[in-house]
Amino acid sequence: MAGIPSPPLAITQGDPSGIGPEITLRAWRDGSRRDPFFVVGDPRFLRRAAEALGWAVPVAESTPETARDVFARALPVVLHGLSVEAAPGRPDRRNAASTIASIDMAVALTRAGRAAAVVTNPVAKHVLYEADFRHPGHTEYLAELAADPGRSPPHPVMMLWCEALAVVPVTVHVGLAQVPARLTTELIVRTGRIVDHDLRLRFGIARPRLAVAGLNPHAGEAGTIGTEEGRIIAPAVERLRADGIDVSGPWPADTLFHERARARYDAVLTMYHDQALIPIKTIAFDEAVNVTLGLPFVRTSPDHGTAFDIAGQGLARPDSLNAAIALAGRLSRVARP
Amino acid sequence: MAGIPSPPLAITQGDPSGIGPEITLRAWRDGSRRDPFFVVGDPRFLRRAAEALGWAVPVAESTPETARDVFARALPVVLHGLSVEAAPGRPDRRNAASTIASIDMAVALTRAGRAAAVVTNPVAKHVLYEADFRHPGHTEYLAELAADPGRSPPHPVMMLWCEALAVVPVTVHVGLAQVPARLTTELIVRTGRIVDHDLRLRFGIARPRLAVAGLNPHAGEAGTIGTEEGRIIAPAVERLRADGIDVSGPWPADTLFHERARARYDAVLTMYHDQALIPIKTIAFDEAVNVTLGLPFVRTSPDHGTAFDIAGQGLARPDSLNAAIALAGRLSRVARP
Repeated sequence: MAGIPSPPLAITQGDPSGIGPEITLRAWRDGSRRDPFFVVGDPRFLRRAAEALGWAVPVAESTPETARDVFARALPVVLHGLSVEAAPGRPDRRNAASTIASIDMAVALTRAGRAAAVVTNPVAKHVLYEADFRHPGHTEYLAELAADPGRSPPHPVMMLWCEALAVVPVTVHVGLAQVPARLTTELIVRTGRIVDHDLRLRFGIARPRLAVAGLNPHAGEAGTIGTEEGRIIAPAVERLRADGIDVSGPWPADTLFHERARARYDAVLTMYHDQALIPIKTIAFDEAVNVTLGLPFVRTSPDHGTAFDIAGQGLARPDSLNAAIALAGRLSRVARP
Repeated sequence: MAGIPSPPLAITQGDPSGIGPEITLRAWRDGSRRDPFFVVGDPRFLRRAAEALGWAVPVAESTPETARDVFARALPVVLHGLSVEAAPGRPDRRNAASTIASIDMAVALTRAGRAAAVVTNPVAKHVLYEADFRHPGHTEYLAELAADPGRSPPHPVMMLWCEALAVVPVTVHVGLAQVPARLTTELIVRTGRIVDHDLRLRFGIARPRLAVAGLNPHAGEAGTIGTEEGRIIAPAVERLRADGIDVSGPWPADTLFHERARARYDAVLTMYHDQALIPIKTIAFDEAVNVTLGLPFVRTSPDHGTAFDIAGQGLARPDSLNAAIALAGRLSRVARP
């Protein structure tokens, strides 16, 4: 007896002047059909985008409940109710409202169980800021949407994931000079707990193995090239271990990411953006996926931006969006305890 | 008519309690025979090391001039004149003198044209320091040996090299918190000039293409995540370009190292240690080679340390020493202008 199929995935519109429309059309046309999805957007806009590209992608209005059937013959679009007019490569703050409405609705449908997970297309923060968006970024906004009434929003944690490697930057969009001051034992512990929790809950790993990178060359070489390992990172590893988490480190970052080393852990906590992004983009430039941990729902995203410079030309590779869809599907099929 | 064969390579002893003896024996036994080499050391010590490992590696006293013939039947050893007694895994400052004598003699033979290049085995700085060694490190010591009388030593530049990637950290063994202050336009320009010069002279690349990494996430994202790109790095790129060097950047470091990106340059100038070491050790952990640029001779080295913890057990992989030997041979065959 087959179980009830899980609901489809909800894909947000993203900035309609970026590559979001074309990679979404291609994801439906070329992508695996394993994980049905719908877009929250304006079907007329997507139909015009397909025509402008010369692609035979049928686009059909849908509800979340009919999307699975529609998906077999057309790209299903659940209406956010706004009309979208956008020229590729020419971001326009007048589209900020529909970009945000798409996120709001995708999250609401997912939280209501009518979508299995949220996959977000890229947005351009500066366009949203011009339209009075007052949140630090896409991920922080999702965390606010995830807040229960009267409570502070959850701490969202960015993980970059590919089949071969999962990395979590403990500090993210921080200038390198500010990283040492931003790094605290508390921040590493909080991040490590969320990663351990979500690798269990979302990825179905019974006992996740975390590796923690050092900050300095050779992880400080016993304090001779830096003291953050001893003062900040090692105490965090101890506290996580005291929680019963399988964690090791701080390790020299340069010896952590080759193939034999990767067999020894499920995810690495890195201390700064490029310590995470360099290794994963070196080995999986097109296929890496951004997963947000710490939210009460699954959210994945391609690991690239709006790419206004190539938008509308049909050049953008859908690999990362395809991988984001596949991972969202996989995570939403993991049995919950 | 065959040309005169170039002289053999000179390999230093390294710390005799580390893995140097065993990887050198294996390099002779297992390695390619393309590039004949001799060790500057104590043949009785190496003979005992082979016996202790149970390896049938014949060791023979040699001169630089007879080493090529000896190499066909035995590992040639040119005497440094000191007797070595060492237990694997137990570094002893009494061996500092022979470790240093081996470096001195390998450099002298190479500068005299009796060896083609220097390949150094790993040393442990702390052991040399205990024996009153007063130089910041192995590479700086080589630069001092390369100084002409009455002149300041050349600026040695560390490059990590494998077939797929060459990376140069502009700052090296510096704590991450100190990197932004150490980074100057002058340092980047000086490093870039040496890299360009040696890629021409030593690697035979007619017009080297250099890529320069940014310091901050997304190369500072137009100044919003950091200002070093605009204040320090971009002006260095401009000055190198004004020299006629083919250079580009600053680029976001995370998008520089995947396969398609690597096709666009011959070497990357990175701003700090792990920005260089993470990508190269991720893709070529065992085969990466350390090459010192800026010296008046070729010097390569395996990209690992003395590994006292596994020394004497025959477990150490000779891959990086083999690669260092092969690269030294290749660089010493490049036609000089």
